[in-house]
Amino acid sequence: MFQSAAKTLSVATTTAATLTRGTSFSIRRYCQKTPATLRVSEAVSGAKLGANVKVQGWVRSVRPQKANLFLHVNDGSSLQSLQVVASSELDDPLLTLGSAVEVTGTLRKSPRQRQPFELEADRIHVVGDCDPVDFPFKIKERHSLEYIRQFPHLRCRTNAFSSLLRIRSEATTAVHSYFKENGFVQIHTPVITSNDCEGAGELFQVEPSSPNNEEGEKFFSVPAFLTVSGQLHLEVMSGAFSRVYTFGPTFRAENSQSRRHLAEFYMVEAEVSFTQSLEDLTKVMEDMFRSATEHVLAHCAEDVDLFHKHVTPGHRDTVDAMLKNRFPWGCDLQTEHEKHLVKHCGNIPVFVTDYPYDLKPFYARDNLDHPEHTAAAVDLLVPGVGELCGGSLREERLDLLKARLGE
Amino acid sequence: MFQSAAKTLSVATTTAATLTRGTSFSIRRYCQKTPATLRVSEAVSGAKLGANVKVQGWVRSVRPQKANLFLHVNDGSSLQSLQVVASSELDDPLLTLGSAVEVTGTLRKSPRQRQPFELEADRIHVVGDCDPVDFPFKIKERHSLEYIRQFPHLRCRTNAFSSLLRIRSEATTAVHSYFKENGFVQIHTPVITSNDCEGAGELFQVEPSSPNNEEGEKFFSVPAFLTVSGQLHLEVMSGAFSRVYTFGPTFRAENSQSRRHLAEFYMVEAEVSFTQSLEDLTKVMEDMFRSATEHVLAHCAEDVDLFHKHVTPGHRDTVDAMLKNRFPWGCDLQTEHEKHLVKHCGNIPVFVTDYPYDLKPFYARDNLDHPEHTAAAVDLLVPGVGELCGGSLREERLDLLKARLGE
Repeated sequence: MFQSAAKTLSVATTTAATLTRGTSFSIRRYCQKTPATLRVSEAVSGAKLGANVKVQGWVRSVRPQKANLFLHVNDGSSLQSLQVVASSELDDPLLTLGSAVEVTGTLRKSPRQRQPFELEADRIHVVGDCDPVDFPFKIKERHSLEYIRQFPHLRCRTNAFSSLLRIRSEATTAVHSYFKENGFVQIHTPVITSNDCEGAGELFQVEPSSPNNEEGEKFFSVPAFLTVSGQLHLEVMSGAFSRVYTFGPTFRAENSQSRRHLAEFYMVEAEVSFTQSLEDLTKVMEDMFRSATEHVLAHCAEDVDLFHKHVTPGHRDTVDAMLKNRFPWGCDLQTEHEKHLVKHCGNIPVFVTDYPYDLKPFYARDNLDHPEHTAAAVDLLVPGVGELCGGSLREERLDLLKARLGE
Repeated sequence: MFQSAAKTLSVATTTAATLTRGTSFSIRRYCQKTPATLRVSEAVSGAKLGANVKVQGWVRSVRPQKANLFLHVNDGSSLQSLQVVASSELDDPLLTLGSAVEVTGTLRKSPRQRQPFELEADRIHVVGDCDPVDFPFKIKERHSLEYIRQFPHLRCRTNAFSSLLRIRSEATTAVHSYFKENGFVQIHTPVITSNDCEGAGELFQVEPSSPNNEEGEKFFSVPAFLTVSGQLHLEVMSGAFSRVYTFGPTFRAENSQSRRHLAEFYMVEAEVSFTQSLEDLTKVMEDMFRSATEHVLAHCAEDVDLFHKHVTPGHRDTVDAMLKNRFPWGCDLQTEHEKHLVKHCGNIPVFVTDYPYDLKPFYARDNLDHPEHTAAAVDLLVPGVGELCGGSLREERLDLLKARLGE
């Protein structure tokens, strides 16, 4: 599938490349005053205004008019495409939706309303053509997600998918930044592991696909699985580093088709040593959630707006409300429904704490609060999502741990 | 193993925690002027000099003297431990190597030569004890890696391992920073996949460990493997984003015990669209290598020095030489040995380009340089490592691709 897409994908290299060795290349380039290559995100914000620049990307629209030709070019660096204005003489039958182009020209203020800057082209080079009949997406049509899903090799060319991927990339950066700024050491907990972490979910087993050369000798000396949680490895690390985290792929072999059950997903896990109360954990949960949300809103404003406009209208207000207030703590939850609680608290995230002791794993700290008997555990419930994070103080009293393991 | 280590590991929570709900906790804390909690890395560099502070960590040495007690406390935030000076009256039989402590006191300039700052304690609280007889590491002894390896749950308490883990964490940050600053979008390419990416290595197969409920229905509709490369997925993305990368776990089922063959390792892969020559790739390789090295040297200077001192003497000069010059390009390599070449070039990284066409994968761009017949591929050879990165221009000429696929 991937290979057969080569034609439509308008491949990544130009046809004219001659290899040039060593430093002579950059010197030559400097002497020739080759135009600076700009990303579309830079060009649409007016970087290098008035300068001769080069922009590379894929054509999103073509509008030939009497004297002028208008193109929109996108390179994945932003939701916005760059408007290119050229003399009709530069038109080319290969300039179609989906074709890959390299445009050289002058970046100037646009006399038109829709965008502040545009590229006045003096050269348009089609480096990869695209047959508009074969290409599954059409100009100005809004395709359904069900339709787009049929073209996994091309869907990243749609606004919905490219926005989603940019948001995911920024959200990942934001999570790492939060932990780094707060003194956490990142640990790569193993993906292949022999532990099943308190039976957190159905496991995938891993075996070499072809048998080993030496008969009878197994690749792994014990059964090997894909990780369902890095918790046990992180707990070991938290005996030497007072703040550690991991953020990597996690696996569950649950045979269920839903938005909340994926065979493979990314999970953040952190261990904080020397905790005194649940507040030491809720602070990390809330601050990470808050800083990641703010980072994404700041770095992908247009991408987020696209989703607020077309996918989840009204969600923007919910997000704003989340960021405005500290998250409240709920109490005595046994009889209430999670979603109801979140709504009850004004549609913002809510911490639920002190769960019944018997519902929580053996390592959660016993609050010793007879007759309620709860554990020092916490979940963060978020509007529209449900449980986003969970955590607990760890039981450190050896006699209590031993007694519970005995049970 | 992990659970049984609980006693020696000096657990992460204190025994005195009473849960306090909501915002009242932070208000109360504010009124009591609780001392600021500092990480050891902050304390050893003199942050909050003169202030009343709290430091938490694990005891690395205990020296009782007549009037004073000297401790070294480490919390994993730096190679350096914090010197704590206390009146002998604060001594406690539980203050042993490996015990977890919380020390409150005043941070002051040290009158002693070995460290500029020290903590004058007015309270030392042992939050987790550690039996020095059971604890496998001894004060002032240098343990061999072979010995340390027997204690996977405690080895992160040694200087060698904690330094290595801090360096790995910073190196990971550096790689992400380089790509982010250069406009690359991070893509999480799937770990479970049905493609074997040009047979890059022996595969691991993945199956649910317990059979599904419904008989005859398989979890995956096709055989599923652990990824050996995200290249094919990234190539799809590079048809919509002109710069993408992935940095995640990668798997090879090679049954070989060596430093260069791991079942699971982390790999960086990037795709750059609109490349003109191999220099577009070597620039990314060299800049990433250089910026990651500089970042690690800047952020983990002491950790790196530890390795240069005890593990690879003389390597510091090699690193400095690498950073000083642009990497040269080698040519006509067929008859030379890689290590010899690196040495010949002054022990710095070398790019080897234009490999014989038949040695490279089918998608590498044909240089059409009869009779040599080479492909536009490049490897980066690094002293002490060998091949660190490899790459190629992709063949975009459909007729050439089809002809080669036919072969």
